[in-house]
Amino acid sequence: MPLPQPDLPEPAHPDVDSMLSRKFGKEVANYFSGSPLNRVSFLRPDHTFLIQALRHPSTTVLLFNNLEPLVQNPHTLATATYDDVKPLIGDHPFCDNEEELIRQYNSEEYVPQIVFLGLDERKGKEGFVYKDHYKGQPWFAVDVTPQRSVKEEAEKLIERMKGKGLDFSKGRMNLSLGAPEAAIYAEARHLLDWNARHPYCAGCGYPTLSINAGFKRTCPPKDMAPSVQHADRPSCATRTGISNLCFPRTDPTVIMAVVSADGQRILLGRQKRWPKYWYSTLAGFLEPAESVEEAVRREVWEESGIHLGRVVIHSTQPWPFPANLMIGAVGQAIPGGEEIHLGHDAELEDAKWFTSEEVREALRVGTSGLGEDAGPEYKEGGLRLPPKTAIAHQLMQAVVNGFASGVTMI
Amino acid sequence: MPLPQPDLPEPAHPDVDSMLSRKFGKEVANYFSGSPLNRVSFLRPDHTFLIQALRHPSTTVLLFNNLEPLVQNPHTLATATYDDVKPLIGDHPFCDNEEELIRQYNSEEYVPQIVFLGLDERKGKEGFVYKDHYKGQPWFAVDVTPQRSVKEEAEKLIERMKGKGLDFSKGRMNLSLGAPEAAIYAEARHLLDWNARHPYCAGCGYPTLSINAGFKRTCPPKDMAPSVQHADRPSCATRTGISNLCFPRTDPTVIMAVVSADGQRILLGRQKRWPKYWYSTLAGFLEPAESVEEAVRREVWEESGIHLGRVVIHSTQPWPFPANLMIGAVGQAIPGGEEIHLGHDAELEDAKWFTSEEVREALRVGTSGLGEDAGPEYKEGGLRLPPKTAIAHQLMQAVVNGFASGVTMI
Repeated sequence: MPLPQPDLPEPAHPDVDSMLSRKFGKEVANYFSGSPLNRVSFLRPDHTFLIQALRHPSTTVLLFNNLEPLVQNPHTLATATYDDVKPLIGDHPFCDNEEELIRQYNSEEYVPQIVFLGLDERKGKEGFVYKDHYKGQPWFAVDVTPQRSVKEEAEKLIERMKGKGLDFSKGRMNLSLGAPEAAIYAEARHLLDWNARHPYCAGCGYPTLSINAGFKRTCPPKDMAPSVQHADRPSCATRTGISNLCFPRTDPTVIMAVVSADGQRILLGRQKRWPKYWYSTLAGFLEPAESVEEAVRREVWEESGIHLGRVVIHSTQPWPFPANLMIGAVGQAIPGGEEIHLGHDAELEDAKWFTSEEVREALRVGTSGLGEDAGPEYKEGGLRLPPKTAIAHQLMQAVVNGFASGVTMI
Repeated sequence: MPLPQPDLPEPAHPDVDSMLSRKFGKEVANYFSGSPLNRVSFLRPDHTFLIQALRHPSTTVLLFNNLEPLVQNPHTLATATYDDVKPLIGDHPFCDNEEELIRQYNSEEYVPQIVFLGLDERKGKEGFVYKDHYKGQPWFAVDVTPQRSVKEEAEKLIERMKGKGLDFSKGRMNLSLGAPEAAIYAEARHLLDWNARHPYCAGCGYPTLSINAGFKRTCPPKDMAPSVQHADRPSCATRTGISNLCFPRTDPTVIMAVVSADGQRILLGRQKRWPKYWYSTLAGFLEPAESVEEAVRREVWEESGIHLGRVVIHSTQPWPFPANLMIGAVGQAIPGGEEIHLGHDAELEDAKWFTSEEVREALRVGTSGLGEDAGPEYKEGGLRLPPKTAIAHQLMQAVVNGFASGVTMI
């Protein structure tokens, strides 16, 4: 018996979609997934690898200022070279191994965050080669936010980039990158955000040190800062064994197209701050000790009062604002469980059943980014929906394409 | 077209499975999921609700000492009452609302952690009722670890419980709870662990305060502790807007049964510390900005060298040691991508292709918990596998039951 093969919605991004179907077989590849990079995660502790990768002539560096990426225009990331960032990060990143970095740790020294993103194997032949096995163009991200000891140097670097006609993106709403770039951007943004917002150890309250090329923060046992006089720090539970406090955080989130018991209608909700006539699928965080199906049923009942029967996972989407894994599902109401009640949780301003026809038409004429106008065929008063880059859109498309129609699932 | 309906493996737990199939339709309900509690998460900030729930005569309290639950025996949790824990938690939990708790915050005051788990609606009629809508037996968990100001009182409470013939479980290996109890235990353990291991704010390093009945930690702007002289604290980014630093952490993990391109063989790996002949499916953490399918392909390649084509999600399992969401998948190797190479990542001691027949036989005679003996029919030298409570087992069972056999998925 073959694996169940979900109906494919319209490709979110034709380039990724065709790449994936050639390389991996059919699946729904949502925006921000489909990275062309091999992360070679096991090489992150290998400082010899990291030095060589950082200094290779083919190496590409993404720059972020306050988490906004340097771009050529909203559709294309700008890339920098190691020489561009050398005045900021110096000659010696990765020159010491991790044991040595921990031994020398000085909480008063500010080091701009560097993240190793992976090797672009599409450019393997002309690119960087390590131990014969690992080939490709190395990608890094560097935080060039002007602050602390590097404030002046970072400002100069930013001016140099602006001199080339480049600038930092103003808000994610304006970004519309091609799919492979979007996936690389998502990785960089998620990691830079996590490092920037977690400078202290949640276990003991002391500042932490970035290691593993940006994928780990450790709580050093000593601090060589002059002001603390080379003090030993109190013991910290994160130093014994492996602790998830040391690793980047990714929050599982459920997002679901809800269909009626007869499969003919779709439940959508809206938040107060959204534009008029704009609706989307319900969503919420998965909680501790829930399966995905349980989280979907709980969120739908809490937000809309609807009781779900069958729940089926459709696809997933990384969402780096700041750190989500969106798990997309389709759920079906049980007969008699379709009455809307917004009184449990106060999250939604409205929730409503729409016919498949209304949703199908809105997917054709009424989609756009949140800050944008709907398309030219849109008529005031009609349903407005999120764009193809949102998994919400893909879930609705899957439903109107027949993912759940006609058959009672319970 | 109906939703794709995965083949059901043998029910992990007949009681949950039949409950779910009656209530929700067929799905794979792994151990630690299938909770009978309604979490009514939107009532957690409502201190009137919490006081009434805590003090209701039907209320059930789970006690944990150093994260080990009080049990009657390894198959049954012991339950306590509000009166049992009153000497430890006092008369006033939840008497103040959250604004007031934050205003009065004193970092030197130790308050044993209390978590509201939910309402058991199976016992709705005789139980607690709030605002007519919300009915059921309230469940709480309390951390009774003897420490700081409550050391003595906690020790007395523990002695009283031991006087009743009850004791705290010695390690999770010995626990074999029924499915509904296992799900409640998982929720309690995950939340108590998170609160215990995250006492400080990762954004600013100052101690935090538990609110939302154990589901949130907030960084108060003032500290009334005498030693800090009612000091205003430095500004903290977590105080403006919603920050994921305040919410419990759940780490998405991928675990996958890998089948050969022809679907006839299954790849299993082993870690050095496991008993002889013991193998299981590969697994690893999903990283920032990966879809589930990408994480599955990366982990399998990094750990075994195998190149996967199609990947299909099978089911999910909460795993509260300390905070995982296991996302179970089946992946199929591409033709020519089946050669094992353990040299990328050093995680596995061995990885091997097994025939479906070998795995089917081992699922019949060779399964057990890690610390236990295999069954009476097991013969020394035969393959040993994890028990039904592990999603790894369910994935292998799904494959040998035909979830992926015979058809090349790419």
